[in-house]
Amino acid sequence: MRGGCEMCSRWVDDEHLRIEEFEHSYAILNRDQFFPGYSFLVAKKHLSELFHLDCTERAGFIEEVNRLALALNEVFSPLKINYELLGNMTPHMHWHIIPRLNGDPLWPRPVWSEPHPEKILHQTEYDARITLIKKVLR
Amino acid sequence: MRGGCEMCSRWVDDEHLRIEEFEHSYAILNRDQFFPGYSFLVAKKHLSELFHLDCTERAGFIEEVNRLALALNEVFSPLKINYELLGNMTPHMHWHIIPRLNGDPLWPRPVWSEPHPEKILHQTEYDARITLIKKVLR
Repeated sequence: MRGGCEMCSRWVDDEHLRIEEFEHSYAILNRDQFFPGYSFLVAKKHLSELFHLDCTERAGFIEEVNRLALALNEVFSPLKINYELLGNMTPHMHWHIIPRLNGDPLWPRPVWSEPHPEKILHQTEYDARITLIKKVLR
Repeated sequence: MRGGCEMCSRWVDDEHLRIEEFEHSYAILNRDQFFPGYSFLVAKKHLSELFHLDCTERAGFIEEVNRLALALNEVFSPLKINYELLGNMTPHMHWHIIPRLNGDPLWPRPVWSEPHPEKILHQTEYDARITLIKKVLR
């Protein structure tokens, strides 16, 4: 697709939030760090449902979800990781991978249960988080 | 585990809501049908994170998620399927597989964005939905 889909251009648009390029997806830190470590895994292809992938791609994709989750787990030591594939507003497959930390103000409710202010960081802080995640991913 | 974990006994407790037994998981209709077709895929093993599965189990599990999603898609013709693996309150892997239908009062927001009354059906209505899903799964 490209034109009109914000996820098709996310890797380019969010260059300063890039974590890693995988075979099937891009790992990108969420600009809003209200939940520290909240990241996206965006499919390279413009598709929306799991059943739009073939079996091999699905297995590969879930390994990428898993690698990112494992890295976030090591860096942030969360109580739990939340994995969400929604796409109601932007039907281009992007997983929300959200470490839920001790002290999380919405814990144990889902992150969507209450609105919250965006937490925007300085670029040096984004860089520090991304460096930690990348280090563990390798 | 078993004792104290409601997901360990869910297949037994929700006998009247059973959809299908897979290799790694149980598919169970959610008793609350506020979102028609809302189902759970509950891991047979007591574990909580994707990285507690080995690579082969993860690939197998995501195929089961996919099979259930595909069946719900055929039966309910949703605008989108939502896939959520949370487990904050009950840390035993259970996926929420939620068809989001035309006319969904919370669309396009996540299902957790607003509380809603439970929609409890008569057993004949549960049976009718389960029969439709099972038929497509085969």
